[in-house]
Amino acid sequence: MADVDSLEFLLAAVRKGQPRAVGRAISLIENSAVELPTIMRALAPAAGRAMVVGITGAPGVGKSTTIAALIAAVRRDGGRLGVLAVDPSSPFSGGALLGDRVRMQQHALDGEVLIRSMATRGHLGGLSVAAPSALRVFDAAGCDMVIVETVGVGQSEVEVAGIADCTVVLLAPGAGDGIQAAKAGILEIGDLFVVNKSDREGTHAVVRELRTMISLGERKVGDWKPPVLSLVAINEEGVPALLAALAAFRSDAESSGRWQQRRLEQARRQVESLLLAKLRQHYALERGSEIERLAREVRDGQLDVFSAAEELLAPV
Amino acid sequence: MADVDSLEFLLAAVRKGQPRAVGRAISLIENSAVELPTIMRALAPAAGRAMVVGITGAPGVGKSTTIAALIAAVRRDGGRLGVLAVDPSSPFSGGALLGDRVRMQQHALDGEVLIRSMATRGHLGGLSVAAPSALRVFDAAGCDMVIVETVGVGQSEVEVAGIADCTVVLLAPGAGDGIQAAKAGILEIGDLFVVNKSDREGTHAVVRELRTMISLGERKVGDWKPPVLSLVAINEEGVPALLAALAAFRSDAESSGRWQQRRLEQARRQVESLLLAKLRQHYALERGSEIERLAREVRDGQLDVFSAAEELLAPV
Repeated sequence: MADVDSLEFLLAAVRKGQPRAVGRAISLIENSAVELPTIMRALAPAAGRAMVVGITGAPGVGKSTTIAALIAAVRRDGGRLGVLAVDPSSPFSGGALLGDRVRMQQHALDGEVLIRSMATRGHLGGLSVAAPSALRVFDAAGCDMVIVETVGVGQSEVEVAGIADCTVVLLAPGAGDGIQAAKAGILEIGDLFVVNKSDREGTHAVVRELRTMISLGERKVGDWKPPVLSLVAINEEGVPALLAALAAFRSDAESSGRWQQRRLEQARRQVESLLLAKLRQHYALERGSEIERLAREVRDGQLDVFSAAEELLAPV
Repeated sequence: MADVDSLEFLLAAVRKGQPRAVGRAISLIENSAVELPTIMRALAPAAGRAMVVGITGAPGVGKSTTIAALIAAVRRDGGRLGVLAVDPSSPFSGGALLGDRVRMQQHALDGEVLIRSMATRGHLGGLSVAAPSALRVFDAAGCDMVIVETVGVGQSEVEVAGIADCTVVLLAPGAGDGIQAAKAGILEIGDLFVVNKSDREGTHAVVRELRTMISLGERKVGDWKPPVLSLVAINEEGVPALLAALAAFRSDAESSGRWQQRRLEQARRQVESLLLAKLRQHYALERGSEIERLAREVRDGQLDVFSAAEELLAPV
């Protein structure tokens, strides 16, 4: 993959939406390959056509089932769809993770559904650079919608919200779910709230509690008010309403300017993350032994951490 | 709190272990007060006597109950104890969060038990600087053990492990807990695994699965092998064995040198986090409008994020 020609070939295949090319490009991103800046430079003009939907929620609420139901519905409408499962902590590469996602595998042979997982540990700039780069690949491949899911126990909800155009918070009826949502700050990041498994007891209570909490939240006049939807993902009940809510969100956000504003904030975060990652790299290479000595002094109580940081900054 | 005299007075009261002084000092940390470097400079020599125990686990496994049981046991032995509940995402200050922690409140009037929660959002350097600073306060106040708990849906397990001498992963019998642990990378961070509610059905299965997973994990010869303990925290059953395991961990880590090594790594992370936070601050102040312009170009597809970061680094 070293020469320019084969990179050109890969990018052409990505633009044609070829699943293997998409997978290969995302692997290069995942591994912070040296070709990464070249790839992203080439894909930059393929900017932001796809709607990025973040799906978040505690384990067991049915994220995979919901995603499978969404895929099925979008495919019936003839759309092309990407799914990116982000695992910020895993050192393992994608394939293994998706191996057990039986419900998604039914779409594995559909060329219009591009499913990839991606580890971001070790990636320069972390999730906030790697995931948007991967999303740009899906975008260039002609996806209408890209679903982003994080793998892990409730981890990184906020990070997913930071890369999505619209964040869907999934819940299920059960003890204290609403309260948990409030504690984790999920209320603040959700653009849509979806109570899955809504054929179960306790659904009304969760929906009511969520609506109360949302109405209590601070919101400026004209702001989007997150709706609370019900879903039985396993039977695909409520999926059309969910798609309609996503479309309503987009139309509202575009007309109010919030869509472009959020994407600007995301771009700013990306630039800052990468800048900081590069600064960190610079310090590790150039001043590693000084950092080591200062850390030793902080551990042993000869120095406080603030003085240590000042010492490192001094010559800048 | 502006003058040096009152700061001296506060620090003297902290060293005497006065709960209100400890609370006040942690509030100053929480709010990144201008006095913070001075406080930390004064407390630096109070280095690392207390053992920092991180408690992590999914919602509902019984973290608060387990902490209450640990407090009761340590108090019976005459020790002084601190509890720091870290909420990385909450903009709310501590008091409110602990208001509903009924089980811990029974110790609220015990002067030898110092309980504080702390929000770290907005803190320069985030959790990785704020929490160790607060731990140093507990240390200076003469605590033998400080328990760190994060609030939130499974969030920040890894961050807690990054500030603790020993990380206790709490689980409870129930569907898929073991597998969830593996997914979240919890297996890698746990020094002790504790299955709470072990009077319930399914305990043996969880214990067995954990032991298998631990034995399959990569481990060098001579490394600590995390034990799997059973607990019924609500009845304080299994607490003596947990305390014994904590002591065994400490003694093993100290004699192998891992104790000091881990604390060195933590100090390095603190220094680096604060350094990066200060660099970020510098860029925001000095080159904010340039970052804004680059972010706009990235959003609109005129520029890729790698070229944007390079442009910012260029004059450094």
